[in-house]
Amino acid sequence: MNHYTFNDLYVGQREEFSVTVTENMLSSFRAVTGDVNPLHTDDAFAQAYNYPQHVVYGLLTTSFLSTLTGVYLPGERCLIQSVEVKFPKPVFVGDELLVVGTVAELHESVRQLVLKVEIMRRGVRVLKGTMRLGVLEG
Amino acid sequence: MNHYTFNDLYVGQREEFSVTVTENMLSSFRAVTGDVNPLHTDDAFAQAYNYPQHVVYGLLTTSFLSTLTGVYLPGERCLIQSVEVKFPKPVFVGDELLVVGTVAELHESVRQLVLKVEIMRRGVRVLKGTMRLGVLEG
Repeated sequence: MNHYTFNDLYVGQREEFSVTVTENMLSSFRAVTGDVNPLHTDDAFAQAYNYPQHVVYGLLTTSFLSTLTGVYLPGERCLIQSVEVKFPKPVFVGDELLVVGTVAELHESVRQLVLKVEIMRRGVRVLKGTMRLGVLEG
Repeated sequence: MNHYTFNDLYVGQREEFSVTVTENMLSSFRAVTGDVNPLHTDDAFAQAYNYPQHVVYGLLTTSFLSTLTGVYLPGERCLIQSVEVKFPKPVFVGDELLVVGTVAELHESVRQLVLKVEIMRRGVRVLKGTMRLGVLEG
């Protein structure tokens, strides 16, 4: 885990990690949320809408931004204030995702970090967005 | 599960459900994402920042929007295009949350629904935001 303080941060700073999506992750997400939508469970349903198989929950993919910010950038002192994400491409079980954050703005008076976030699968962007983060003191 | 088609939807339409956050949900979220940030595990760490106890992951709270849209509004035909959320108040284990969506706009030419979303705890808003959803045909 990283322990960046506000003063350690600079515009352009970047952190990333990789994660492979598993069927177990989908099962856990479904157990927690109760989202039993067939697009995420039923290959035949998904194929009727021209997907090759069932699709990973967009908000499961989004959940990896919790790790990006809470473990990597800024790490321990992270406090998420807001999240904006779009999903340009679907994600499937077995996909290896590269989760990337880049510091876009720093607002010292409110100890706020604006982070540009992207999730890539073999060079194709599957999620893009912006997060506003507070950086705890100490 | 609801099965609303695009033509069934109208501005002002509202759906809601309740869920109580458990420690097991936090453990599952942590196992899936790898977010081991101490704000979400360590009461002493959280108390040093004036929280009464460890805080629920903001993106776990956000995950209930998957259920709101994929099960309730519009339900089966839901395709999440974008999510914007803010977290005005922290959430704690044991909190009973009311997850509410209200149709704000309908764009027939692109079969898009703009949903205003809110998550309330005993009348206090802990999450507010906007989601853009596609509504699948059929």
